[in-house]
Amino acid sequence: MTTQPVLIAGQWREADATGTFVAENPALKESLPEVYPVSSWTDCEAALDAASSAAEQLRRTPADRVAAFLENYAARIEARAPELVETAHLETALPKSPRLADVELPRTAGQLRQAAAAAREGSWCMATIDTGAGIRSYLAPIGPVCVFGPNNFPFAFNGVSGGDFAAAIAAGNPVIAKAHSSHPSTSRIFAEEAQNSADAEGLPPGTVQLIYRLSHADGERLVADRRIAATGYTGSRAAGLKLKQAADRAGKPIYVELSSINPVVVLPGALRERADQLSEEFAGSCLMGVGQFCTNAGLLLFLAGKETDALIDSLVTRFETAPVGTLLSGGVARSLAENVGKLEAAGAQRLTAGKSAGGAGHCFANTLLRVAAKEFLNHPQALQTEAFGNATLLVVAADADQLEQVVDCLEGNLTGCIYSDTGGSDDALYERIASRLRPRVGRLLNDKMPTGVAVSPAMHHGGPFPATGHPGFTAVGIPASLQRFAMLQCYDNVRPHRLPLALQDKNPGGAMWRLVDGAWTQNDLT
Amino acid sequence: MTTQPVLIAGQWREADATGTFVAENPALKESLPEVYPVSSWTDCEAALDAASSAAEQLRRTPADRVAAFLENYAARIEARAPELVETAHLETALPKSPRLADVELPRTAGQLRQAAAAAREGSWCMATIDTGAGIRSYLAPIGPVCVFGPNNFPFAFNGVSGGDFAAAIAAGNPVIAKAHSSHPSTSRIFAEEAQNSADAEGLPPGTVQLIYRLSHADGERLVADRRIAATGYTGSRAAGLKLKQAADRAGKPIYVELSSINPVVVLPGALRERADQLSEEFAGSCLMGVGQFCTNAGLLLFLAGKETDALIDSLVTRFETAPVGTLLSGGVARSLAENVGKLEAAGAQRLTAGKSAGGAGHCFANTLLRVAAKEFLNHPQALQTEAFGNATLLVVAADADQLEQVVDCLEGNLTGCIYSDTGGSDDALYERIASRLRPRVGRLLNDKMPTGVAVSPAMHHGGPFPATGHPGFTAVGIPASLQRFAMLQCYDNVRPHRLPLALQDKNPGGAMWRLVDGAWTQNDLT
Repeated sequence: MTTQPVLIAGQWREADATGTFVAENPALKESLPEVYPVSSWTDCEAALDAASSAAEQLRRTPADRVAAFLENYAARIEARAPELVETAHLETALPKSPRLADVELPRTAGQLRQAAAAAREGSWCMATIDTGAGIRSYLAPIGPVCVFGPNNFPFAFNGVSGGDFAAAIAAGNPVIAKAHSSHPSTSRIFAEEAQNSADAEGLPPGTVQLIYRLSHADGERLVADRRIAATGYTGSRAAGLKLKQAADRAGKPIYVELSSINPVVVLPGALRERADQLSEEFAGSCLMGVGQFCTNAGLLLFLAGKETDALIDSLVTRFETAPVGTLLSGGVARSLAENVGKLEAAGAQRLTAGKSAGGAGHCFANTLLRVAAKEFLNHPQALQTEAFGNATLLVVAADADQLEQVVDCLEGNLTGCIYSDTGGSDDALYERIASRLRPRVGRLLNDKMPTGVAVSPAMHHGGPFPATGHPGFTAVGIPASLQRFAMLQCYDNVRPHRLPLALQDKNPGGAMWRLVDGAWTQNDLT
Repeated sequence: MTTQPVLIAGQWREADATGTFVAENPALKESLPEVYPVSSWTDCEAALDAASSAAEQLRRTPADRVAAFLENYAARIEARAPELVETAHLETALPKSPRLADVELPRTAGQLRQAAAAAREGSWCMATIDTGAGIRSYLAPIGPVCVFGPNNFPFAFNGVSGGDFAAAIAAGNPVIAKAHSSHPSTSRIFAEEAQNSADAEGLPPGTVQLIYRLSHADGERLVADRRIAATGYTGSRAAGLKLKQAADRAGKPIYVELSSINPVVVLPGALRERADQLSEEFAGSCLMGVGQFCTNAGLLLFLAGKETDALIDSLVTRFETAPVGTLLSGGVARSLAENVGKLEAAGAQRLTAGKSAGGAGHCFANTLLRVAAKEFLNHPQALQTEAFGNATLLVVAADADQLEQVVDCLEGNLTGCIYSDTGGSDDALYERIASRLRPRVGRLLNDKMPTGVAVSPAMHHGGPFPATGHPGFTAVGIPASLQRFAMLQCYDNVRPHRLPLALQDKNPGGAMWRLVDGAWTQNDLT
């Protein structure tokens, strides 16, 4: 059995491997045939050197060419869509349609094209010019970026095709992608097309590199290496915190998306007004994709009352009768069981029957748990354990004060949502809850489950720690996501012909918005 | 002797002190009379609770009122200018005029007014609206901010009056200021006027708080506390790294300005063209303020040659004949001696005579050191030791390749500068050096010493680690400096009347630039 090569310095080459691994088909619990290498530090060294060299060349590459690369790559992804969908389905058990073929793949190609448009247009770099003082500054490429993708979006967050990749490249940086070990073949196909696109557009070798797996120690060494400028990571909190600690020590920016239980507060007027609709909406959102979304609602909060009891009964029925989906991996199934166990140990009561029955392959019964707010307040940390998958904890508060106290205990989350009635009877309580929830979440929603994350310039996919490592940055939403992979560069008294294009008197392309002497303009300087 | 009270929750009150300290007049090496408390954690607890409460109230306070506070405060500072100048002069030995009275005080008041204007105008918050998707986001106040000011700017970087303070307040946050122990009375006067201004404008108690001194352990606990949202720190690398580690672990943004030797590369054509002018410029800049600036040039790089030798001879004469200024404190004098010793131990040769003679009070002889680039490359870390004060290391490279190698070894710095001739003979070498220097510094200058830091929207006072902790943020330059103290908040499907003013259809004030459906505009939504 041949071990798959890694992509380093523009070449597919034999890894310097310390071992091998195979992916598993989670629906069949069977190993997949391809054998992938666990790379040694030697592979990292080679990738780091190639990335340094690529970064230098990319700094001199016009944004147009980077944009053309992203667009070429998007088209190649679409051309190999059937193979990507089939492969990702085998590796993740995510449904081919609509999920992989009709939602995630178009989103992935769309993100790459949006990133290309942002690179070409240029406003993302916040060019700022003070003509009186002779000072000009902008956000410039930061240098080689390391991207660690998660298990749950094999296309749209993949280290070599997803949002962090698109943002880092569009900002003008090379990427060293660390594939997620659960979908190496999907990652390989992406990397093949990324390299073909880089070749076609003449980008330097080392612009896109792929390593499948590393020891944890080498991962920590990688993000702290002097040749790495920044890292993007989406995944488990434990692994992410180790990488963050290593990068922080070295003074390297690292953008980690770690965990989120996405609280949803249901105010009593909303329940009185539209309980049936809410029950359907909550169950649908909580079980969509077997609950394996960063923005899956893991915590629903209610005020005690007969409408709440009725809604909960209805949710229990829906959870028990809904089909049980296949989880992404045995690891996800094990963690889910373990974390549901932690919630129970902390006082949550399981409302749904069955433990792990009903589905194909790696699975876990659709699970609802319930705990009184009073109990939640006794164990606020344990009861905020993220049970990634198809499990949701319901918290029932005796009164509004208790509800407030629960919200006051919440850790940082990506999202928070409040459902209220349309007539205004919930408005006073809404204000009390919203003022407490708002600083704890990146995205606040009304009357809408948080699962969908639109790729919009106004989107924020981020939030206070421990949802992410810094509440000022978003992983989704172009152009803001590009700014994570940039450094602020100022030019003071620098001679005009030595300025980067974006800061010259003439507005290159003419579309870029620049802040000139205090006002945004697309004009040339006169 | 009464111990001075601390400012907590809007009241000047007796500290819960674990000890006391006094400041020293560095020119006389004599203790100053006022006795200041070292606060216990009990004081921090009280300040944290008051700051939390103030943050909640400030979120509901119109930006106009925050702006009025800053302007009121600026006027009060000007009204007490003579007392501030006298006090700071006693505590720091910085000259009353022009430095304190005519440069730093107007700059401080000006920064507060610029911050007020930015708060009132509102564009800093990057309001972004996607009407189609129903999503709106902006940079919102992050919450209570801790500011640790440095020793070298008792006004303009003071924790309770300087750039970080102005930025944090203008962004809508309360500030807990930790005074620098070397100028407590200066800090006290500022805090008195800040509190008077807060009272006058009806800002909540706890908007501005002042603690004079803490144990290191309590400082680390403070920046990591759940009630603190972010920290600004300017000071020594060792203390800053400890705070950074504590904040990083807790997932709290911390903006640290740690150290910088601000390399200046002098190309041979510039020397041939204007050696006399350069000699005067270099000596003047290196010795200004006794070299106690974050952007003081600590490293001058040359190519070997007779013009270089002549310039160095001329610099030695200037350094030896220039008056020796008084340093900020005995601590600065001791560190300077120690760090010059480290440079010598690593192979640098001292060119100037005398060790610590010639000045009044705490002082150190104006010092030039020289090392060959070859030697520098053997001990690149030790030879980048920051000798904060009136000492500069000259590095002489045998050829352009060696010069490049030295630049390749440089750590992250706030600034980097290249002098070249006006005729173009240096242009090829400029390109080689600039491409290497550019990613290592926040601000690149041509033909100008880096000492001055204009308060311009295009300014960048920051740079890659270890100059600061993140290369994307600036401590000087409004409005960008405000963005450090903000969190990105997104509103998804939120009902119009519940949106913050900045995101409502009507542009509040009408002056704010907002990114609406991809284009910057000051218009209302229609």
